[in-house]
Amino acid sequence: MSFRIEKDTMGEVKVPADKLWGAQTERSRNNFKIGVPASMPLEIVYGFAYLKKAAAYTNCELGVLPVEKRDLIANVCDEILEGKHDDQFPLVIWQTGSGTQSNMNVNEVIANRAHQLAGKVIGEGDKTIQPNDDVNKSQSSNDTFPTGMHIAAYKKIVEVTIPGVKQLRDTLQKKSEAFKNVVKIGRTHLMDATPLTLGQELSGYVAQLNHGLKALENTLPHLSELALGGTAVGTGLNTPKGYSKRVAEYIAEFTKLPFITAPNKFEALAAHDAIVESHGALKQLAVSLNKIANDIRLMASGPRSGIGEITIPANEPGSSIMPGKVNPTQCEALTMVCAQVIGNDVAISVGGLQGHYELNVFKPVMAANILQSAQLIGDACKSFEVNCASGIEPNQEVITKLLNNSLMLVTALNTKIGYYKAAEIANTAHKNGTTLKEEAINLGYVTAEDYDEWVKPEDMVGSLK
Amino acid sequence: MSFRIEKDTMGEVKVPADKLWGAQTERSRNNFKIGVPASMPLEIVYGFAYLKKAAAYTNCELGVLPVEKRDLIANVCDEILEGKHDDQFPLVIWQTGSGTQSNMNVNEVIANRAHQLAGKVIGEGDKTIQPNDDVNKSQSSNDTFPTGMHIAAYKKIVEVTIPGVKQLRDTLQKKSEAFKNVVKIGRTHLMDATPLTLGQELSGYVAQLNHGLKALENTLPHLSELALGGTAVGTGLNTPKGYSKRVAEYIAEFTKLPFITAPNKFEALAAHDAIVESHGALKQLAVSLNKIANDIRLMASGPRSGIGEITIPANEPGSSIMPGKVNPTQCEALTMVCAQVIGNDVAISVGGLQGHYELNVFKPVMAANILQSAQLIGDACKSFEVNCASGIEPNQEVITKLLNNSLMLVTALNTKIGYYKAAEIANTAHKNGTTLKEEAINLGYVTAEDYDEWVKPEDMVGSLK
Amino acid sequence: MSFRIEKDTMGEVKVPADKLWGAQTERSRNNFKIGVPASMPLEIVYGFAYLKKAAAYTNCELGVLPVEKRDLIANVCDEILEGKHDDQFPLVIWQTGSGTQSNMNVNEVIANRAHQLAGKVIGEGDKTIQPNDDVNKSQSSNDTFPTGMHIAAYKKIVEVTIPGVKQLRDTLQKKSEAFKNVVKIGRTHLMDATPLTLGQELSGYVAQLNHGLKALENTLPHLSELALGGTAVGTGLNTPKGYSKRVAEYIAEFTKLPFITAPNKFEALAAHDAIVESHGALKQLAVSLNKIANDIRLMASGPRSGIGEITIPANEPGSSIMPGKVNPTQCEALTMVCAQVIGNDVAISVGGLQGHYELNVFKPVMAANILQSAQLIGDACKSFEVNCASGIEPNQEVITKLLNNSLMLVTALNTKIGYYKAAEIANTAHKNGTTLKEEAINLGYVTAEDYDEWVKPEDMVGSLK
Amino acid sequence: MSFRIEKDTMGEVKVPADKLWGAQTERSRNNFKIGVPASMPLEIVYGFAYLKKAAAYTNCELGVLPVEKRDLIANVCDEILEGKHDDQFPLVIWQTGSGTQSNMNVNEVIANRAHQLAGKVIGEGDKTIQPNDDVNKSQSSNDTFPTGMHIAAYKKIVEVTIPGVKQLRDTLQKKSEAFKNVVKIGRTHLMDATPLTLGQELSGYVAQLNHGLKALENTLPHLSELALGGTAVGTGLNTPKGYSKRVAEYIAEFTKLPFITAPNKFEALAAHDAIVESHGALKQLAVSLNKIANDIRLMASGPRSGIGEITIPANEPGSSIMPGKVNPTQCEALTMVCAQVIGNDVAISVGGLQGHYELNVFKPVMAANILQSAQLIGDACKSFEVNCASGIEPNQEVITKLLNNSLMLVTALNTKIGYYKAAEIANTAHKNGTTLKEEAINLGYVTAEDYDEWVKPEDMVGSLK
Repeated sequence: MSFRIEKDTMGEVKVPADKLWGAQTERSRNNFKIGVPASMPLEIVYGFAYLKKAAAYTNCELGVLPVEKRDLIANVCDEILEGKHDDQFPLVIWQTGSGTQSNMNVNEVIANRAHQLAGKVIGEGDKTIQPNDDVNKSQSSNDTFPTGMHIAAYKKIVEVTIPGVKQLRDTLQKKSEAFKNVVKIGRTHLMDATPLTLGQELSGYVAQLNHGLKALENTLPHLSELALGGTAVGTGLNTPKGYSKRVAEYIAEFTKLPFITAPNKFEALAAHDAIVESHGALKQLAVSLNKIANDIRLMASGPRSGIGEITIPANEPGSSIMPGKVNPTQCEALTMVCAQVIGNDVAISVGGLQGHYELNVFKPVMAANILQSAQLIGDACKSFEVNCASGIEPNQEVITKLLNNSLMLVTALNTKIGYYKAAEIANTAHKNGTTLKEEAINLGYVTAEDYDEWVKPEDMVGSLK
Repeated sequence: MSFRIEKDTMGEVKVPADKLWGAQTERSRNNFKIGVPASMPLEIVYGFAYLKKAAAYTNCELGVLPVEKRDLIANVCDEILEGKHDDQFPLVIWQTGSGTQSNMNVNEVIANRAHQLAGKVIGEGDKTIQPNDDVNKSQSSNDTFPTGMHIAAYKKIVEVTIPGVKQLRDTLQKKSEAFKNVVKIGRTHLMDATPLTLGQELSGYVAQLNHGLKALENTLPHLSELALGGTAVGTGLNTPKGYSKRVAEYIAEFTKLPFITAPNKFEALAAHDAIVESHGALKQLAVSLNKIANDIRLMASGPRSGIGEITIPANEPGSSIMPGKVNPTQCEALTMVCAQVIGNDVAISVGGLQGHYELNVFKPVMAANILQSAQLIGDACKSFEVNCASGIEPNQEVITKLLNNSLMLVTALNTKIGYYKAAEIANTAHKNGTTLKEEAINLGYVTAEDYDEWVKPEDMVGSLK
Repeated sequence: MSFRIEKDTMGEVKVPADKLWGAQTERSRNNFKIGVPASMPLEIVYGFAYLKKAAAYTNCELGVLPVEKRDLIANVCDEILEGKHDDQFPLVIWQTGSGTQSNMNVNEVIANRAHQLAGKVIGEGDKTIQPNDDVNKSQSSNDTFPTGMHIAAYKKIVEVTIPGVKQLRDTLQKKSEAFKNVVKIGRTHLMDATPLTLGQELSGYVAQLNHGLKALENTLPHLSELALGGTAVGTGLNTPKGYSKRVAEYIAEFTKLPFITAPNKFEALAAHDAIVESHGALKQLAVSLNKIANDIRLMASGPRSGIGEITIPANEPGSSIMPGKVNPTQCEALTMVCAQVIGNDVAISVGGLQGHYELNVFKPVMAANILQSAQLIGDACKSFEVNCASGIEPNQEVITKLLNNSLMLVTALNTKIGYYKAAEIANTAHKNGTTLKEEAINLGYVTAEDYDEWVKPEDMVGSLK
Repeated sequence: MSFRIEKDTMGEVKVPADKLWGAQTERSRNNFKIGVPASMPLEIVYGFAYLKKAAAYTNCELGVLPVEKRDLIANVCDEILEGKHDDQFPLVIWQTGSGTQSNMNVNEVIANRAHQLAGKVIGEGDKTIQPNDDVNKSQSSNDTFPTGMHIAAYKKIVEVTIPGVKQLRDTLQKKSEAFKNVVKIGRTHLMDATPLTLGQELSGYVAQLNHGLKALENTLPHLSELALGGTAVGTGLNTPKGYSKRVAEYIAEFTKLPFITAPNKFEALAAHDAIVESHGALKQLAVSLNKIANDIRLMASGPRSGIGEITIPANEPGSSIMPGKVNPTQCEALTMVCAQVIGNDVAISVGGLQGHYELNVFKPVMAANILQSAQLIGDACKSFEVNCASGIEPNQEVITKLLNNSLMLVTALNTKIGYYKAAEIANTAHKNGTTLKEEAINLGYVTAEDYDEWVKPEDMVGSLK
């Protein structure tokens, strides 16, 4: 393996000759052998690429960076965004809590690659572009890393999470309408209760997801605030006048997302409540999705000795030992995702609550967790929709049988004969293993005609008044 | 101790003669000896009082309850809301997960007290008002308990949490303005960094709390949705036409809060994502407040061997063994509250994710946790404001000394001589224990005049451009 | 209301004349109006009573406290332990994070009550006993509070938690043996699987609880370590020689529990990992109990449209609207407790991870959470045992029907005809709604005789080889 | 891209021709596009390799598998353990909750690779080894996956976590001894307190880690219990007599770790409390490590405007904008790891509490979380030891200055003149900005000689009596 020498303010470092990174990236690789290989999400790197390009444009526009440097920097950023340098970012999450070395990793790669683009050989001659003075101009790790993570998280949420949840929501909505006349037994406390339609049941899930989407969207304005321009401690030291507003506009333009400059840069560096806030909504979605997936597997349980009111697609052999077994595997994948997201929420809280003074130093772990959660929820909803929800069908025979057996149809009599006599009928039928109608008549509380008139499951599900 | 006999659909139960409750409350007392004494929050009981009165009015208006019964029920509800019957609700949180026995406790107390108000003796004669058929008319535990908990949580948030947080926010805002010219050293990674003003530092806390308040307010519309009218499984069985909309209007009128009927009753019974959502915002506030309180105690640490940049009020002797010691006790109380709220958030998630079919049966634990969190955050912010934040004062002598010592003032030279030479100056001064100015001149990078012109802390905090 | 004047090192304070507490308690009441009324657990106060008595005995034995003072202090401690002064401890959890004011509350009550016992009037004459110099001799809040919380938590675990869990474990063990021949269908992924006995199923719960008990017992040695003797920062300043070992022996003697002095006092003050450790085991029990309770309610679901393989006691009317409904309410109470304990675990982690230097200042919140969890698990297990587990009975008719329907009995053929042919039989029977035997013969893979010989549910549950 | 056709009981599937996996692996790749690429930890795959080999040996020994098949299977397992087939396991964590497809992935790879080893071409001719009937003989996913995860977690804990923690513990122990005479100010509530030595301070960290190691070791017996032999539901259906004990012995032999067969297989499949238990101890370590790392960065803060009592190694330039800045980056990496582990603990609880009947279906997520936590804690401790702890040095000048300033030295006077007079001295000195000695004499409570005799910091740290 061949190496070249790179320098930083602490001295010389040997770097693999074929890599674009420089001294500080290499130091970090050696100093943080924690959970290798590389775990810093590429989405963060791409977030940096957007902001480095935006900073170059802003610096140029405000007269502190020449056009040639701007263009070199911007060109490398575009290459990074095209995925051409994915293997040049070897660092782990478990590094400096400000992500300083990941910022420097980007600075170094841009500087070295720009040197190449300028037709020179890395490691030879003066650097065409300086990592700190040029690429990092008007910036600090302290404002770039949170900007990068906001860009990454915002994009992930709007590009993966929300579309995934909506895809599932839409299918559940369609199923809800399709099954609006499938009257079935309701269950509360897992016990037989009064009837509702399968469509109504699914409409509750739709309402949950709609609320979850609304909650998630409510958090986006906070997440759209960018720290960039705060530099080291939030004061904007070493930035030209007008910089922070303009750089956010460039980022908005490049990403086509409504980013703005954070009104208070001190908060934007020292706390990451926007991540806490957005992840709180992801956690809410996880709570909802767990309930929904759990219901669906309960209703699909069987095929012969469970509930069996609905069928779901059989996607793969379910057992390596039990031949012919089919399982609700999409429900399981989804609920495992929910467990992870609920755990990630605590990791984010623990990181968020511990900042000291001007800087929260749990940035990488907070960023990694929100990106994972946003990806997993989006992916899992989509997978669940394609491979499970879209294939839900009622098992009408079972539904009818279970409905007609239920003692809780007696509730329809409350307003006719009162709760206490109705209870007597149900208790007697339960004890004797008989039907409600038999006991209603035996006890002399209702005539057969009245019973048939009053106790109609399809009349008990009526739209809310 | 004397007893009377009360009955329910399971038979007779002996109840203490001097109590207003009936058979089902007594059964629950005996069946759930978990963490006694009574732990069901009174706020829930009051929430029930509002809704029972509203239901009585609506039932009467819609022709299914006579005016006399309505008035008797309403009168008892008013008495409950005046706190006259607080000792009549002896149940624990750890009961039926639908809170059924707490609903029945309210029904029984109203029925028995109404009997008294009607001039009769409890246990004698036919009940003037029936707990199930009258007080609970057009209701189920399944829709009343979540309604009661939404009323209680909403009230607590707007009456205790938000005012408490605002009181603290306002004081921090005032302090931020008062200290806008107090230039001090910034700290990132706990290490000396470039300067900012104490006012700027506090403005970050204000921004955190403003974001937290916004996040909390964003959750209120979901929390304003009431399940009432869904009855047993969400279908509204046994309610008169028009009931759910009207009953929510009455509740809004009685509580003077903008409650509405939940558009989807199935969600409102089977999931409590509104609680998850609102508590998520409380957790975000806890994360913010922990950071703020931690910073303040760090800055106030000392008095002689810590940071000591600010002073906070000395409220009580701080040590039983160390004479004269004073501690940041309000910070400690507040951060303990934060720890509890972050834990409560997980309890609520675990409860929220486990519903089965038409009913979430973790209602009491979810309600108790959000009420505790909302109370604690509101109270703790107020206590912190009164006893700590309002007395924050800068310790100018210390601030000036620490500021002028800092090697990070060198950052002002970046745009003049470049990052790398500036680093050399700082590193040399650190190694030699000298000043930046000395080394800047020694190294020949800056003249004394330029140094004094370029390195002015007060110019390094300038408002964001 | 009448008052007397009490003094501390900060000056005079008005205290309600009829209360035994003094200046510092009163200051704390006024400074920490957070979640009032009093929430500091009485168990902590009792823990203090043990240790104050032990300290008095040790101080006397080591020659730094006269016998008369020892006896006065000890007498008041005994009164406190008899519950005679429960209303003298009005403070909240949300106070100083070292619990200083609760230590002083105990010191003040002991001093004032000793003054009374010495025949004098509180507030008149010199104090017979000084709160700091006598009651608190050789102590600090920093070592007494953690000692008090270890005593309280240890006692709660051995007196409430472990007996409660064992009571439930023993009943499940008995039921497991009683049902050892009840062959039923197994379920994996909620889907029909190969058979097992109901006894085997319950034996898994027994094993879970045994493991949980073992895990909890493993944590007791750490919890038995007492901080007392460390005083302010762990060095034992102002304690006589031999004090810490001896005082722990007295506490062990008075409590009849195997307490020892902590080998490292710095750890014992600055961290509360023993609380984290013991609560981790409580959380494990919560995870187990949630699984157990959930299974039981699933198996008991119905009565007509659920699984219905077992019956559990009907303890109370289950619905205010559905007459005759009975619910698995003990399962619900228990799983709500589990949710709380899992949340409390996070509160304890958040408190435990944040200590600074020589003192963890989340003592009260950590103590309160472990005491609540330990109480709730013990109580809930007992309640669950008495009101649910002890009444579990198999519903043989349902069990037999569900068992014989199952397609997964086909698994018995794997070793005879191979997995792939067995799968074909099961899939065909599922598709055609036929029996395994029919299809096994139709497909020509098995003769009727062989089928009957090979596929016997009772042979498929055989003891592990 | 070329494909071959593989079959399973559901039909044909196209598989990339160059891959060893079969139909079920391919189905899973297509059905679970969640958080791709592959995320199932290789450690699990290796755990499977151990157990598949052990099962082959046991099956052979018990007469149900021919020697040739045993050897083919064992040879492939050895190849897998040598890392030769790492790219043959493309599945994600977010699949079937029993990990069925990962079991089948291993079965398929072994079967196809064995076919190759037997000199044949994959996809041609009858399979030499059948994935289900041979490789999976006497097994089910339900017992193999938990066995694989116990093997993987146990190995990770003893090979990575414990050595990493011990390495850090040993260095802290050495430092504690080296600094046993460095008397410094103590701090409680972040405020100046009585003195202790730096060695004592570090000894508290050592005690924390020793307790953590003990707690972790306490969990290993539960983790050493293997589910293998339980097959589908715990009854051991389709295993030969003597199988489960023997197969565990083989695993113990192959891994050189003390694995045993789980006494209760029903627990071992239906719950994963062993994972909950071991991870609880990892979480405890995270809580401890967070405290330790936080203390160290506080003590090292500065260099000029913080505490600065110790120095830690400067490993990399700390800021992209502030030249010459050095930060406690190892503390930050370690505390970020702690945040993740505390979050993972909740993910594991949420997974552990939700099992249904005979099978917990959160196996992959639980396994992935414990493996990540165990790796991160081990790695981060090692990184912290090498790059930070081993270089901790006292800054004697600062330590002496801060010590001598402290007003809390007054505590030494408590036993001479009483707490109240001592408090007066300290308060007066604080108010006047004078020294304790001056005020002690001024107030007439102590002579200069006595003061010098009584107030000696080095006498205040004395070993515990």
